Amino acid sequence: MDLDDDHFHDECGVFGIYGHPEAANLAYLGLHALQHRGQESAGIVTSDGEQLFVHRAMGLVQDAFDQSQLEKLPGRFAIGHVRYSTAGGSALKNAQPFAVDFALGSLAICHNGNLTNADELRAELEASGSIFQSTSDSEVLIHLVARSRQNSLEDRISDALGRVKGAYSLLFMTEDMLMAVRDPHGVRPLCLGILPGSQHQGRNDAYIVASEPTAFDLIGAEFVRDLEPGEMLIIDGNGMRSLRLGERAAPHMCIFEYVYFARPDSYIQGRSVYEVRKALGERLAREHPVEADVVIPVPDSGVPSAIGYASALKIPFEMGLIRSHYVGRTFIEPQQSIRHFGVRLKLNPVSTILRGKRVIVLDDSIVRGTTSRKIVKMIRDAGAREVHMRISSPPTQWPCYYGIDTPTRRELIASSHTVDEIARYITADSLAYLSLDGMIKAVRGAQALPSSAPPSSSRDVTTQGYCHACFSGEYPIAFQPPANGKRQMRLVGV
Amino acid sequence: MDLDDDHFHDECGVFGIYGHPEAANLAYLGLHALQHRGQESAGIVTSDGEQLFVHRAMGLVQDAFDQSQLEKLPGRFAIGHVRYSTAGGSALKNAQPFAVDFALGSLAICHNGNLTNADELRAELEASGSIFQSTSDSEVLIHLVARSRQNSLEDRISDALGRVKGAYSLLFMTEDMLMAVRDPHGVRPLCLGILPGSQHQGRNDAYIVASEPTAFDLIGAEFVRDLEPGEMLIIDGNGMRSLRLGERAAPHMCIFEYVYFARPDSYIQGRSVYEVRKALGERLAREHPVEADVVIPVPDSGVPSAIGYASALKIPFEMGLIRSHYVGRTFIEPQQSIRHFGVRLKLNPVSTILRGKRVIVLDDSIVRGTTSRKIVKMIRDAGAREVHMRISSPPTQWPCYYGIDTPTRRELIASSHTVDEIARYITADSLAYLSLDGMIKAVRGAQALPSSAPPSSSRDVTTQGYCHACFSGEYPIAFQPPANGKRQMRLVGV
Amino acid sequence: MDLDDDHFHDECGVFGIYGHPEAANLAYLGLHALQHRGQESAGIVTSDGEQLFVHRAMGLVQDAFDQSQLEKLPGRFAIGHVRYSTAGGSALKNAQPFAVDFALGSLAICHNGNLTNADELRAELEASGSIFQSTSDSEVLIHLVARSRQNSLEDRISDALGRVKGAYSLLFMTEDMLMAVRDPHGVRPLCLGILPGSQHQGRNDAYIVASEPTAFDLIGAEFVRDLEPGEMLIIDGNGMRSLRLGERAAPHMCIFEYVYFARPDSYIQGRSVYEVRKALGERLAREHPVEADVVIPVPDSGVPSAIGYASALKIPFEMGLIRSHYVGRTFIEPQQSIRHFGVRLKLNPVSTILRGKRVIVLDDSIVRGTTSRKIVKMIRDAGAREVHMRISSPPTQWPCYYGIDTPTRRELIASSHTVDEIARYITADSLAYLSLDGMIKAVRGAQALPSSAPPSSSRDVTTQGYCHACFSGEYPIAFQPPANGKRQMRLVGV
Amino acid sequence: MDLDDDHFHDECGVFGIYGHPEAANLAYLGLHALQHRGQESAGIVTSDGEQLFVHRAMGLVQDAFDQSQLEKLPGRFAIGHVRYSTAGGSALKNAQPFAVDFALGSLAICHNGNLTNADELRAELEASGSIFQSTSDSEVLIHLVARSRQNSLEDRISDALGRVKGAYSLLFMTEDMLMAVRDPHGVRPLCLGILPGSQHQGRNDAYIVASEPTAFDLIGAEFVRDLEPGEMLIIDGNGMRSLRLGERAAPHMCIFEYVYFARPDSYIQGRSVYEVRKALGERLAREHPVEADVVIPVPDSGVPSAIGYASALKIPFEMGLIRSHYVGRTFIEPQQSIRHFGVRLKLNPVSTILRGKRVIVLDDSIVRGTTSRKIVKMIRDAGAREVHMRISSPPTQWPCYYGIDTPTRRELIASSHTVDEIARYITADSLAYLSLDGMIKAVRGAQALPSSAPPSSSRDVTTQGYCHACFSGEYPIAFQPPANGKRQMRLVGV
Repeated sequence: MDLDDDHFHDECGVFGIYGHPEAANLAYLGLHALQHRGQESAGIVTSDGEQLFVHRAMGLVQDAFDQSQLEKLPGRFAIGHVRYSTAGGSALKNAQPFAVDFALGSLAICHNGNLTNADELRAELEASGSIFQSTSDSEVLIHLVARSRQNSLEDRISDALGRVKGAYSLLFMTEDMLMAVRDPHGVRPLCLGILPGSQHQGRNDAYIVASEPTAFDLIGAEFVRDLEPGEMLIIDGNGMRSLRLGERAAPHMCIFEYVYFARPDSYIQGRSVYEVRKALGERLAREHPVEADVVIPVPDSGVPSAIGYASALKIPFEMGLIRSHYVGRTFIEPQQSIRHFGVRLKLNPVSTILRGKRVIVLDDSIVRGTTSRKIVKMIRDAGAREVHMRISSPPTQWPCYYGIDTPTRRELIASSHTVDEIARYITADSLAYLSLDGMIKAVRGAQALPSSAPPSSSRDVTTQGYCHACFSGEYPIAFQPPANGKRQMRLVGV
Repeated sequence: MDLDDDHFHDECGVFGIYGHPEAANLAYLGLHALQHRGQESAGIVTSDGEQLFVHRAMGLVQDAFDQSQLEKLPGRFAIGHVRYSTAGGSALKNAQPFAVDFALGSLAICHNGNLTNADELRAELEASGSIFQSTSDSEVLIHLVARSRQNSLEDRISDALGRVKGAYSLLFMTEDMLMAVRDPHGVRPLCLGILPGSQHQGRNDAYIVASEPTAFDLIGAEFVRDLEPGEMLIIDGNGMRSLRLGERAAPHMCIFEYVYFARPDSYIQGRSVYEVRKALGERLAREHPVEADVVIPVPDSGVPSAIGYASALKIPFEMGLIRSHYVGRTFIEPQQSIRHFGVRLKLNPVSTILRGKRVIVLDDSIVRGTTSRKIVKMIRDAGAREVHMRISSPPTQWPCYYGIDTPTRRELIASSHTVDEIARYITADSLAYLSLDGMIKAVRGAQALPSSAPPSSSRDVTTQGYCHACFSGEYPIAFQPPANGKRQMRLVGV
Repeated sequence: MDLDDDHFHDECGVFGIYGHPEAANLAYLGLHALQHRGQESAGIVTSDGEQLFVHRAMGLVQDAFDQSQLEKLPGRFAIGHVRYSTAGGSALKNAQPFAVDFALGSLAICHNGNLTNADELRAELEASGSIFQSTSDSEVLIHLVARSRQNSLEDRISDALGRVKGAYSLLFMTEDMLMAVRDPHGVRPLCLGILPGSQHQGRNDAYIVASEPTAFDLIGAEFVRDLEPGEMLIIDGNGMRSLRLGERAAPHMCIFEYVYFARPDSYIQGRSVYEVRKALGERLAREHPVEADVVIPVPDSGVPSAIGYASALKIPFEMGLIRSHYVGRTFIEPQQSIRHFGVRLKLNPVSTILRGKRVIVLDDSIVRGTTSRKIVKMIRDAGAREVHMRISSPPTQWPCYYGIDTPTRRELIASSHTVDEIARYITADSLAYLSLDGMIKAVRGAQALPSSAPPSSSRDVTTQGYCHACFSGEYPIAFQPPANGKRQMRLVGV
Repeated sequence: MDLDDDHFHDECGVFGIYGHPEAANLAYLGLHALQHRGQESAGIVTSDGEQLFVHRAMGLVQDAFDQSQLEKLPGRFAIGHVRYSTAGGSALKNAQPFAVDFALGSLAICHNGNLTNADELRAELEASGSIFQSTSDSEVLIHLVARSRQNSLEDRISDALGRVKGAYSLLFMTEDMLMAVRDPHGVRPLCLGILPGSQHQGRNDAYIVASEPTAFDLIGAEFVRDLEPGEMLIIDGNGMRSLRLGERAAPHMCIFEYVYFARPDSYIQGRSVYEVRKALGERLAREHPVEADVVIPVPDSGVPSAIGYASALKIPFEMGLIRSHYVGRTFIEPQQSIRHFGVRLKLNPVSTILRGKRVIVLDDSIVRGTTSRKIVKMIRDAGAREVHMRISSPPTQWPCYYGIDTPTRRELIASSHTVDEIARYITADSLAYLSLDGMIKAVRGAQALPSSAPPSSSRDVTTQGYCHACFSGEYPIAFQPPANGKRQMRLVGV
């Protein structure tokens, strides 16, 4: 059985490093720190200044690489990628980074996001003679770069990005250059760090870009700032330059990064994810208080909001559900039906906490409702007198077209059911969601990263707009809804 | 690098089931629920009434077994084992269950604990012509059974157990019988569950024995009771019988099960592990309060005691350290030294929680001190103004000879340093341990399992004595300290 | 140590089948029968009429595929490939068949041969915006097809082939069509077979194309004929059509197929490989007789020519060297030097055959001379009085640019040494090669396949010209010698 | 499908080396040279003088060991084993060498042969308290050694061997001693070699024992002599001593070693296996000549006898069947029936050799007849006018109880069919077997190893008796026929 829980899933994490003698090793560690953003495949491309070296494999970072493979990735700079993907597209050929030879040399790319006009562009490219070996948007982008009439790679990439629409945080790498780009709306996160030359055996500062600053923490690097929406950062032998990509657009950072995707120890757009989650819980407590004996989270994502909710209402916080550390993605299921089986592999109740109690359960979101229903029953079976579910975000009613794996609208329970109906379905005594307005206010009010954040970023903090399309249906970037769910390659296999 | 953290380690978990058509599948699930007790190897033996079927492999339960291997384990009863072991003894030949042919048929055994006179017995057996293929105590026991002059297997096992000393929870299985035994002191836990016949497709009730009741929860079985110290439970075609093993001894349940080994959602000897840990934290707060802004646990084991400590002193509880879900036992380390590298792979601080704060950190124990030192520094580097370490058990000064993997006395920092010296070594502003008396009182006072617990067990609850030799040096069972640390086989390899 | 013996190596074998319900299974068997043409990777693409299904993997056919992978390759037609490659190009991304999506649908290709203007074409394609993911010529060809302005796939392929030069036997496959093409010179072999509908559970005849007819034998198909040089055979729902590709060129079948590459039970261009080899031996006996006591082959390739040589001179034939069946491509070597180590792993002398004898050793060719030297010494160490080496082909002095893996000219001992010098180097009492003229006459005179061969093929048999560039330096097709040996991708890895 | 051909199978090969700094590496090579004697599992035990080091694994020698595993086998002496086994007993726990700890230290053993009273001894040992973990005879032997009341290991082994009956070539090893033993009848071969100290970096001569001298050839050692039947050779720090085991028995070397088991480049009991096989063919020609156009062998075992047969009758010898090098033990079979499928994977006819010809086919034996039947049909399908099968040994009518894997009597076609009936079954125009007397004379008359063989061995050569029970039913050693075919362990699995 597949144990992927009932959540939206981030599709990728990216990591790049320039100017360090152990580039591949640090990319390996950086990707490990981004592992929560994608567990299906991992890959690293390095350059020794002459050639690119690639290794990609299925599985977690620590399974995809061993010492001997890392040793075959020489050079002082690297880009890497972790990928989550839905069953259909799960194959090594879709693993990233994607790397090719073309007229100007070799080019590698990795990508977090989704190009909303990729199908159109692909059809157009095929019509003019391009061939495709994967379903990846990255292959479309590389074709656009290879076919651009511009002379320099920089201009070609600008040219290619001028043709694509969508949400993306991209890394490009050639034999002698690393480039990081964030789409004009800044939907997906991307941030810059530095590893001072004084702290490692290389002479120069090493620059690092990553989806989240947790990747900096692990390798001892310092957070510098978030990339601006529409910023294109070029790092090569001449140092680092920042360019602006096309016209300025209103910023629309994905607000779900705060709700669930990012690690709680991350800082997204200058704000502590942990603090945002706590604030979401506090505001939810104000919007939807309920008398109860204990507040428990659905671990691990619900912990900070449960702490916030509990402290706001002065109700004791307890870890009433214990999460197993040992569950992989698949598990052999007995033939005989066992109650709440899938959920039990991950979660088990602490009955002394729950027996006879009025219990408030904090979770970040409800997707299909099936998992929530099992959790409520499990808590009730453990003896709870009342079970009140509180969700630290609004109802998720709309699919994401910007790089997040979501079910179709039809499968999202909130798209066709009222809150009361959902409460009845999950058999909770009460159910309440945080309001959209409350969520945005909680994010805005949350504690920001201190002094180290540069002025430009802190400015963004105050004026930041968010993409909340999955809650509101207000999509900031035009898209073509896919005909039959997922884009399909006609070619199947490895 | 090896990431095994700086803890004592339980060496094993055992699981047995009698009378279920999916015995191997349920053993697989039950072992998964005991995975925290041993991650190095896993094995299951089943019986179809005629023959025993064995599969053992290195790795986690979900890696050691796949569907096809489970299908090669037919029959209605099974015993299984998960094993942790130190580097030296890490080999398939030491994996359990151990199974042989002997005069009365086939016999399989699995074992949590340690026989303190195994070396003596082994020497004696060798002198009279026995051969040994592993370093396992189980092989000694099987030899004693095979050489016993008694007629029935039951009598032979009693005879054999009459010769061994030590701490053990044992399962035996033959072609048509399952037996569970707990040593007279009841050092290691073992409990009985039932899966009512009405709830599965078999006609009869299935009986289950396991190290912890978490194994019952996952498969939907009900907890019946703990085995009594010195109890020998025989389950066969005639139903279940309970015998008493030799003379009665004072009970000495390992108190460290509450402190760290058992899962927080377990009930050991009738008490909720979670509640005990919370009570340890509350009592520690009373014994060693300190003014501070925030209480944080070292996750996951420190969470309940931190909640208890925080609530006792009305200081906010926060998850100031975030634990990664993706760390296996080994990891490739960069050549360049990275601050707190090993700890960072598992833990990362949330700096908004810690910056400028007086922080109390709750952990369950300090073994060598190296990890604590890194944690304190990491918290301080994240901006904490003060760091106060609180340990929810007394200083661990003595090795365990009853089945727990502990360093030698020399490596235990508390055996040769005062609390102040340790505080200085780990660079904490203050350090305090719970007193031995406090620990025992906290355990005794903790909330017990409700109604379902049978009278006999609840009686035990009030009169229970504990083994706390690792804290006090008061060893309840005689032992011979091994000459050079670990017992060594002269034979190395697979 | 790498045990690849000191031979030229064929680079590939191809197999295609159209119209059989077990297409993937038969492709698997057919590739096994072509395994001697390439041992590094294997791949199969099938079509179910709607989609292509691909599986490629490193290793022998029987290792690259298991039952479950074959079951994921549905459909009634298939193409497959086995590949040998030199260390540098050894990677899954170079494994064939190569398959892509393009404007007209999906297209798969596999290829035995070498395009001599691939570098030029690749540079040209890159200049106009193409990207490359492998070093394979096939990728160049697919780009040419995808970029062709012709409407039908047939015309596009003709168009693309009109631009390439070189030696090739190609298979193309789309969702509903299979195409087989042999270059105008007919350098590499390719033949057609049939599996009559009456003999399998499908209603219709199944057509098969393969590098050698041994692939037909294994699956019970019948040999129909060799493809003509420059023939393009199209098999689809409308049956089979044959077209001629561009202008007619003089036929130049690779004569080395007879000398070494093909299996002795094969028929190449209508002639039995075994009979040709025997005739080479007989003619060599006439050109270079020597008085001796015994004729022995270097097994297995030297067996038929040794039989021919021995019978021509009425000297006893014996298997004086025994070949091991159990040697893979790599082997762990002891540190201490052992005489003739690498050769001994494969060959061991029968000393009663050799002791005190004048021995004639038959081999098919000498490449670097190092192996021959070890063989001569091994025979002499076994007690031979004289060792006379006879080679059943002329000295190999020139590299192949038509799809065979040969060392550079510099490494070919015969390119810079006289026969006497080589004899001295390999320490033989005498050494003689077959003359070029003698080789061609032996081939022409050898027994041809009987009745089943169609008129067109038998005509070819009499007028057939051969490529013998590796012996003569007369290259029938223009080529650009690669700058630095092998064409290199700038991109390294998987 | 399982491709094990229709032959008797040797069950094991053994190799031991004493006194070489690269003992494990040389054992690895030596076992490779004995690979034809067992392909299912391989194992090596070394000693560094203090401890034994073991590695055993399933598969061929080159798959069972890699560099890192060999490096974990330190020390200057080693014993190793390759094992063939029938499906039922195929498990790592039965792999050898078998190694244990016992009263005198560690002891490893490996074994080629079969103890005919093992079941009795096992029952007796179990009755007195022994436990068994495998079905191996070796475990019985080790128990007898461990339980012997003698003081020295030497005496204990003599004592133990005094109790066993059967055919065995055994190696024992302790921390500081290597011992080689051949049973009193000398049924299974075992020979002694030397690697002079001057030829390797160790100071002293290294002694080697192996099933066949091919193992010496590969590592550059010299053949010294065969062990005498009933000889016990002890090599330790004091040099080499030879003892005689119990009473002298009539020598009965397995004659089938010459017919099929041994490699043709081997010398068994002083005679060249190749020369014996040629002599078998020559004598068969005299006993059963037939007019024909060509003599072909079933490769590879039939080659020398076919050469002998052909030269005796002056009929041309040809390789009319080509054997594939690439067939492992299992292969995926298509659902549709393909004529002669299993045989075709291994053998393919050369039709120009066979078409219209009267063909004599030489094979070493017929077991069930199924393979011979397919071969005859395949040759006839290739166009042969007549097919005459000649077998270079008498009809195999009796199972072997001395260490060879044979079918039950019932499955041996010759036990219940006349030669004419078999001829009809296999559809041959004629069939003839060599007579028992002819076989023995051919062996006795065959060319012996020259000068290097010591007097004692050459004496044996003239007086040697053979075991030919499988042909004659004259079993030289008493045995208990197993109740139900194979001895079964009650315990199944790993």
